[in-house]
Amino acid sequence: MSCLFCDIVEGKIPAQIVKKDDHVVVFRDIQPQAPTHVLVVPTKHISTINDLTGQDAAIIGKMVMAAQEVAVAEGIDESGYRMVLNCNKDGGQSVFHIHLHLLGGRTMQWPPG
Amino acid sequence: MSCLFCDIVEGKIPAQIVKKDDHVVVFRDIQPQAPTHVLVVPTKHISTINDLTGQDAAIIGKMVMAAQEVAVAEGIDESGYRMVLNCNKDGGQSVFHIHLHLLGGRTMQWPPG
Repeated sequence: MSCLFCDIVEGKIPAQIVKKDDHVVVFRDIQPQAPTHVLVVPTKHISTINDLTGQDAAIIGKMVMAAQEVAVAEGIDESGYRMVLNCNKDGGQSVFHIHLHLLGGRTMQWPPG
Repeated sequence: MSCLFCDIVEGKIPAQIVKKDDHVVVFRDIQPQAPTHVLVVPTKHISTINDLTGQDAAIIGKMVMAAQEVAVAEGIDESGYRMVLNCNKDGGQSVFHIHLHLLGGRTMQWPPG
């Protein structure tokens, strides 16, 4: 089955890539909700956070560290930012390949949606 | 310097504890923004996501796996949920001991704050 984010990881579909290594790809959200809004995607296909096993858990750490690095590069580390992971319908998950949203450059409101 | 979440981890301040192990404590948010709203806190004091080092990154995986387990226990894994990490002022961080918000039991909106 085709997956939009696997296609971006493999370079089959263009995206504004911010960072790429063996474990993660970071690219700009096409419908940004803040001055900085990027998605951090593992190169490995995992459909939802529910599907993460203990063995995969390290990838979450790598995703957050990649987002932290991009926050510094975007100059939003001191002002602040929000990271968001959505799972299934109530969470608002739209692409079924896990991804971390990093948003900053404005004051984020509460509740978080 | 005193830290509210260290005090909860150490049992000095009461909280509605949902889960506790050597690495994380999960308890209910006192100002819930959804039918399920818990905080996952590492037992180790880390002030902000900016302060995470590569060595600490594994704790993020443990936090997400703990939240995943609580989502199943609360019966929101299939309907869906949102996980949120806030850093500094623009992110809306209010307690400077990192914590993961898990929210579910209702449809979360977009943008995430």
